[in-house]
Amino acid sequence: MTELPGLVVTGVSGRMGRMLVKTITESGRARLVAGVEREGHAWVGRDIGEAMGGAPLGAMVTDDPVEAFARAQGVVDFTAPAATVAYAGLAAQARAVHVIGTTGLEPAHLEKIAAAARHAVIVRAGNMSLGVNLLVRMTQKIAAALDADWDVEVVEAHHRMKVDAPSGTALMLGRAAAEGRGVTLEQAMVSGRDGITGARERGSIGFSAIRGGDIVGEHDVIFAAEGERVILRHVATDRAIFARGALRAALWGQGQKPGEYDMMDVLGL
Amino acid sequence: MTELPGLVVTGVSGRMGRMLVKTITESGRARLVAGVEREGHAWVGRDIGEAMGGAPLGAMVTDDPVEAFARAQGVVDFTAPAATVAYAGLAAQARAVHVIGTTGLEPAHLEKIAAAARHAVIVRAGNMSLGVNLLVRMTQKIAAALDADWDVEVVEAHHRMKVDAPSGTALMLGRAAAEGRGVTLEQAMVSGRDGITGARERGSIGFSAIRGGDIVGEHDVIFAAEGERVILRHVATDRAIFARGALRAALWGQGQKPGEYDMMDVLGL
Amino acid sequence: MTELPGLVVTGVSGRMGRMLVKTITESGRARLVAGVEREGHAWVGRDIGEAMGGAPLGAMVTDDPVEAFARAQGVVDFTAPAATVAYAGLAAQARAVHVIGTTGLEPAHLEKIAAAARHAVIVRAGNMSLGVNLLVRMTQKIAAALDADWDVEVVEAHHRMKVDAPSGTALMLGRAAAEGRGVTLEQAMVSGRDGITGARERGSIGFSAIRGGDIVGEHDVIFAAEGERVILRHVATDRAIFARGALRAALWGQGQKPGEYDMMDVLGL
Amino acid sequence: MTELPGLVVTGVSGRMGRMLVKTITESGRARLVAGVEREGHAWVGRDIGEAMGGAPLGAMVTDDPVEAFARAQGVVDFTAPAATVAYAGLAAQARAVHVIGTTGLEPAHLEKIAAAARHAVIVRAGNMSLGVNLLVRMTQKIAAALDADWDVEVVEAHHRMKVDAPSGTALMLGRAAAEGRGVTLEQAMVSGRDGITGARERGSIGFSAIRGGDIVGEHDVIFAAEGERVILRHVATDRAIFARGALRAALWGQGQKPGEYDMMDVLGL
Repeated sequence: MTELPGLVVTGVSGRMGRMLVKTITESGRARLVAGVEREGHAWVGRDIGEAMGGAPLGAMVTDDPVEAFARAQGVVDFTAPAATVAYAGLAAQARAVHVIGTTGLEPAHLEKIAAAARHAVIVRAGNMSLGVNLLVRMTQKIAAALDADWDVEVVEAHHRMKVDAPSGTALMLGRAAAEGRGVTLEQAMVSGRDGITGARERGSIGFSAIRGGDIVGEHDVIFAAEGERVILRHVATDRAIFARGALRAALWGQGQKPGEYDMMDVLGL
Repeated sequence: MTELPGLVVTGVSGRMGRMLVKTITESGRARLVAGVEREGHAWVGRDIGEAMGGAPLGAMVTDDPVEAFARAQGVVDFTAPAATVAYAGLAAQARAVHVIGTTGLEPAHLEKIAAAARHAVIVRAGNMSLGVNLLVRMTQKIAAALDADWDVEVVEAHHRMKVDAPSGTALMLGRAAAEGRGVTLEQAMVSGRDGITGARERGSIGFSAIRGGDIVGEHDVIFAAEGERVILRHVATDRAIFARGALRAALWGQGQKPGEYDMMDVLGL
Repeated sequence: MTELPGLVVTGVSGRMGRMLVKTITESGRARLVAGVEREGHAWVGRDIGEAMGGAPLGAMVTDDPVEAFARAQGVVDFTAPAATVAYAGLAAQARAVHVIGTTGLEPAHLEKIAAAARHAVIVRAGNMSLGVNLLVRMTQKIAAALDADWDVEVVEAHHRMKVDAPSGTALMLGRAAAEGRGVTLEQAMVSGRDGITGARERGSIGFSAIRGGDIVGEHDVIFAAEGERVILRHVATDRAIFARGALRAALWGQGQKPGEYDMMDVLGL
Repeated sequence: MTELPGLVVTGVSGRMGRMLVKTITESGRARLVAGVEREGHAWVGRDIGEAMGGAPLGAMVTDDPVEAFARAQGVVDFTAPAATVAYAGLAAQARAVHVIGTTGLEPAHLEKIAAAARHAVIVRAGNMSLGVNLLVRMTQKIAAALDADWDVEVVEAHHRMKVDAPSGTALMLGRAAAEGRGVTLEQAMVSGRDGITGARERGSIGFSAIRGGDIVGEHDVIFAAEGERVILRHVATDRAIFARGALRAALWGQGQKPGEYDMMDVLGL
């Protein structure tokens, strides 16, 4: 009998970290081997389950990623750019699949991640839900099928704590629309209309951001022509979908060749 | 038997002017007595129906508003601020009800309209549809009933030719929400979010503008709290609703005391 | 210093029971004094927190409601009709406020609940969210303001496990629309259109039920006329809103006169 | 210089007939050569434009389709099944492209249309809009990509005069979803939920029909899973899109080999 793949969760005390712990332990498809937190964090040295206020899980929180990664087949990582770059190197040394859901990565970070991916499997995605990735793919195809008589608008809604606009997922969708039309998003993007804007420019891609309550994430891609509209809509109501996507990526990555992958690869889209 | 009230349509050759002609002549509740256009316009001196490419209507296009208003009980006017101010004075002299759907009126214009309203009935509204006015009224009541744990967002969508954002109707809705909360819209308004915005400020009222195709006008007022949302939505699919509202205002105004009224008065809301 | 009101949660092991435990203990506005389960249930005799897989809460699960209610100022009850009727009598004897979120109550159950309400405060509601109750109130007002040129449709969406259609909340909304129009819902209701239906009957109120995934609950009341629509929409994304509403009702009930109340009373709508 | 293709509109006095006349004459891409009405209709023998209350168009209404089709390269036909079958035979004799937007065709009608298509080009579609046909294609692909953890629901809204439910377009969408899943719609279809329905059956495809006002046509295909939803939406706001689709089909059919085609062929989807 094969043992289930062992996974480490970084940033385990955060909202997404806890969600990953819950998803992994309830899945029956992977083992939780450790949680990683920064040195000095109150959770270090405690059982993960107890630190979360529940029953013990038999896996500890550590501030030593090297030791933890050495015991694992995968690392699931929704932290911050600098930490993620460091983890990418360590995971590659340990030959563990590194699943990266961290956002805000700059070109310098991406370069180092690409370097690590020469030696190990990395799956990186701005949004790990099946539905969003399907929407991205469809957006590209429809934008390619329709001409510029169809105006493209991307509308997103998120919770009140979100600090940037448009969302990373909205940008992914806009980029897919631009690719479908054979332009760059930079050429076409119009965000945050306000005041005397003039008539809409043909071929532009507009963005609007709604903020309120605890909305997990909603995205509309609108194609609007004379007399009709086609709208692609994704509604996320539970952050667990991102954790489930990350787990799926970690399992899929087992046995793949070294390289950098995205959710399209994982989902076979 | 009482004769039906006679109405004049200003700016009769425009999109809204033609819609008014159609609505009035098909209503069976008013007579079309003349259309007004500026001096030198190709339609001047022609039958309105023939100028519109149809059967004659027995009412002519004139460039003399004084003569036309003298034969009428009402003037329906969706033109531009300067023209509207002039028509307000002439309509008051003729003791004709002046229905104003013109947008973009500045304080100086409003002052002159108020002066005219001392002598005659004026009905003025940014949006003459029954549904929108109902939405404005409800928005105020709900904003008063809910505390600032409920974030307010106004989202509007219009056709690609619209040159300003947010729409006048969106501003009416935002103003109603602000009044319900006992603040001014100027204090609370956030429009066109883009970039690093920081978390949403408590009590703010956000605006988003979508542009595409030939969308007549759609407005959402979103109240978003933890775990739930209330949304008030108005969808206009036919500009005839504005013409019907204007006709209703012109009929309602017959026999009212001089003064300035809005659609809330007309609709009895 | 005044002590916080003590509350008992019935059906504590169920999905709604656990949600109530969480909401009460995290609120800082009430004390959890006991949970009730049926005789023989595995949780009886255990600490509620431990039975839920977490840290102990210092309150036990019991199968003796009389003893538990005697120590409480309120009972929060989302169980089944027969149990709720029994709890109503026991809560009245204990002079505890009885908050009833149980659905499916028949006239015979309601009679017994009314009898209990002669001696104690009972708050009963088909839906305890603030937003839904606001929607019900608005629906009635708008239905009264608009004539039968505006067709009314109620559309609801719920998770795949829901066994009945339309939802109780949809029926509340439809009833409010009927009241606004001065008819009974029974006269006006059309549910589940399918096949050759003929044209829509003027004045009817239509219902549609969507089922899928884990949708918590979404309700639209659509008023559709020629050229425009007004839509009132409620979206619930977290069952905690029902638990928070129930807690609010239990706190509001302290010090009220005996009688049967609903969420309109609690919310002051 | 090549002459523009000449088209005949059948049922020219009806709402769709008038829309076709308007679309064809304003397009600059085809000539209107005649309108057909049944024997004894008041329009027979009149100029089409004048019969419509406008300026003359230089094309007459006739009750003789043979003579009219002989002068045409295409026939655009949104009438009724029996008439359409007769026109199919006559159009094939005249070697004119026959564009069929008629709904409610039974197997016996379809057989005769197929026979006519052995000699001439026929384009037949339940819905001629570009957007709807795109939605049908996408629905099939997404249904094939997602497993039965994603519940499929089709929701449509139409004007109050519509006599059947679900709409033909909703059925097209449901059929596409069923094909994507490798089942027949008959196996999977659940329409008009009402009463005690039990939990949703895995793999079923649900239909809901909303009726009100003058809604031209709105269709949602909802894919709902745990924690997320993907929704494909089409909104038609102007019947002119169907007329434009029919004109496009008539032009596309010029020079094609005899056979029966649909809008997927025309649109190259």
